[in-house]
Amino acid sequence: MEGIIRVVPGFSWFGKNIGIKDGTPDFGGILSDVPCQAAGVFTRNTMPGAPVIVGREHLRNGILQAIIVNSKNANVATMQRGVEDSRKICELVAAQCGIEPELVLPSSTGVIGRRLPMDVIESGCATLREDFGKTERHIESFAGSIMTTDTRPKWVSATVGGATILGIAKGAGMIEPNMATMLCYFATDAAVPSTLLKPMLKRVVDRSFNRVSIDTDTSTSDTVVIMANGLAGTMGLDAFEDALSEMAIYLAKEIARDGEGATKLIELVVSGAETADQALLTAKSIINSPLVKTAIYGADPNWGRFVMAIGKVFAYSVDIAGLKIIFGQGRDRPMIDAATLDRDEVPLDRISALLKEKEVHIEVVIGSGKYSERVWGCDLTEGYVEENSRYTT
Amino acid sequence: MEGIIRVVPGFSWFGKNIGIKDGTPDFGGILSDVPCQAAGVFTRNTMPGAPVIVGREHLRNGILQAIIVNSKNANVATMQRGVEDSRKICELVAAQCGIEPELVLPSSTGVIGRRLPMDVIESGCATLREDFGKTERHIESFAGSIMTTDTRPKWVSATVGGATILGIAKGAGMIEPNMATMLCYFATDAAVPSTLLKPMLKRVVDRSFNRVSIDTDTSTSDTVVIMANGLAGTMGLDAFEDALSEMAIYLAKEIARDGEGATKLIELVVSGAETADQALLTAKSIINSPLVKTAIYGADPNWGRFVMAIGKVFAYSVDIAGLKIIFGQGRDRPMIDAATLDRDEVPLDRISALLKEKEVHIEVVIGSGKYSERVWGCDLTEGYVEENSRYTT
Repeated sequence: MEGIIRVVPGFSWFGKNIGIKDGTPDFGGILSDVPCQAAGVFTRNTMPGAPVIVGREHLRNGILQAIIVNSKNANVATMQRGVEDSRKICELVAAQCGIEPELVLPSSTGVIGRRLPMDVIESGCATLREDFGKTERHIESFAGSIMTTDTRPKWVSATVGGATILGIAKGAGMIEPNMATMLCYFATDAAVPSTLLKPMLKRVVDRSFNRVSIDTDTSTSDTVVIMANGLAGTMGLDAFEDALSEMAIYLAKEIARDGEGATKLIELVVSGAETADQALLTAKSIINSPLVKTAIYGADPNWGRFVMAIGKVFAYSVDIAGLKIIFGQGRDRPMIDAATLDRDEVPLDRISALLKEKEVHIEVVIGSGKYSERVWGCDLTEGYVEENSRYTT
Repeated sequence: MEGIIRVVPGFSWFGKNIGIKDGTPDFGGILSDVPCQAAGVFTRNTMPGAPVIVGREHLRNGILQAIIVNSKNANVATMQRGVEDSRKICELVAAQCGIEPELVLPSSTGVIGRRLPMDVIESGCATLREDFGKTERHIESFAGSIMTTDTRPKWVSATVGGATILGIAKGAGMIEPNMATMLCYFATDAAVPSTLLKPMLKRVVDRSFNRVSIDTDTSTSDTVVIMANGLAGTMGLDAFEDALSEMAIYLAKEIARDGEGATKLIELVVSGAETADQALLTAKSIINSPLVKTAIYGADPNWGRFVMAIGKVFAYSVDIAGLKIIFGQGRDRPMIDAATLDRDEVPLDRISALLKEKEVHIEVVIGSGKYSERVWGCDLTEGYVEENSRYTT
């Protein structure tokens, strides 16, 4: 499992600019030589974008052969016309590739509430068959074309048995808590039926992307899709799921690290919880607290904000006498607990030094229960505010 | 009901610097000539500060005669020693004023996790009896002494029947959603028994301070207390509650307007909800969305973020066909709805102009139900990040 590209047999890719907003890459696609077993997980936002509505329909039979993505415009809140536009894009792609429109999954990401420039997209589709290619360069172009406020493309690959899995994602903002403003596509030549892919993808997303927070805002466009073309034959499902999980966690961390304005990746473990729900609620409360996030940005060892964030999970009570806040990794980590507080020996300098790192690791022990959760987030900076206060204008 | 000070018969006040952190005012108090009927509402944070623990104890009988407040240090997460420190302060004040320690309510606000400098506080109490006075200047000093990151003191007063009510508050950050990081004290010469004051104060807080959000973080120190010395005799309870509500809403808006880094007050009404819960959840989701808050900061008419924020209330479904987002006040307000979307006639320029105002008024109609909620918040700016990334260091 590495952050490198591996070509997956039987898949073609493209990414290019067609002028949806400006001259940067804004249109990309994935095409399989043969129909694929497929599964998808979409945003829980109750106002999903048109492509999510159409994508759910097209995934109903568990078969896909192509994915088409545009950035710069999310095609959300565009009413029935937006849905028709998404269907039309699938038809254009299908006609070019000689497949059925129902085998194409559409995705859009960008500003909400504007109609797609269909004339531009129609022209962009005219040469599609030649745009697709199977090289690393084609994959890189695809990864670039789906970016919005991401500062870099995100990919990861793994081999498992005789098969290859490649994952491409985008993130950046409007990310939390049931799938990030994120798109993520996995392509593999493993043979896994969609009936198994679907529950597997749900589990994988729950362990990875559903544990990332950038800003507590849940996008209307979140989409994770996997296409398995079967060319490499069957393999051990456990090994496959493990590889997929590891890849998804890698991409989830990449998304947090590249959050809008972020300067740091935060990995937080909450342990000692009485229930899984308490562990997750507490972890989310801390990782989403703007006061925790700004303190970490400034490397300010203001650990009292952790106490506040733990205490605002009203559904559970935590005894401060059993609370431990531990910074860093490995042995001899600086810790705050009742004993250090009683002795006035909080190691503020050591904590501050650890908060200056690019990756901040924190463990919070909230009791002696057996449940724990790991989540990822990023710091809150002036950069986030700057970026988002003038996004559409 | 005005943002002016009215002296309340029978109450004395002081505010001064005693050097808890630096040379700015950090110590203040309220003293009644006679024991008062009293009630309080405190933070729901499960890790309340020591003064909240002691304050709840002292309010058990519904009688108070004095309130003592320090800023610059919250006395939170200071374990049993912190509770003992809070009790000690009540004893010092009681001895000076010739009353029982149980009649004193302590409050502290400021950084979490540091022990109070008890030697400094002990010296500060030595001249207490002479510090107290009944003039407007004394009240102003008190209001100034309880401030932390507030940029200005907050007061409001009203007369109802023959009685006067004065309210003094502080706010600024760590504010949401069950009482702000806020302290608020009401003093009145009305005669209202504590058995009635208590449920009344709960209702009033729920309509006012519990409808304010600065940053979704819930302080460990939130406290609203009312003291009624009875000197003006009894009066109509409905009129009294109305006045108190109006005052609390005024102070709640003042707190939102003066949120850390805030440049704008946002007043949001969500109407047409099917249940009260849906109205409040939707209002909180919008007013707390960092993407909505940054867009308003930049006067960016990025209304799609409202759609996103409405849609991330997973418990309820909203039909976008019935959604209306209306900006401004009065007649002929610019509106976004299905019809304007269908005609591509979203009045972006008019919306942008309204978002440039110091007070931003927004109404979101989410259906045809009969429930509505009004909440207040502020924009999210670089100033919030700057202020909170180097708070303790």
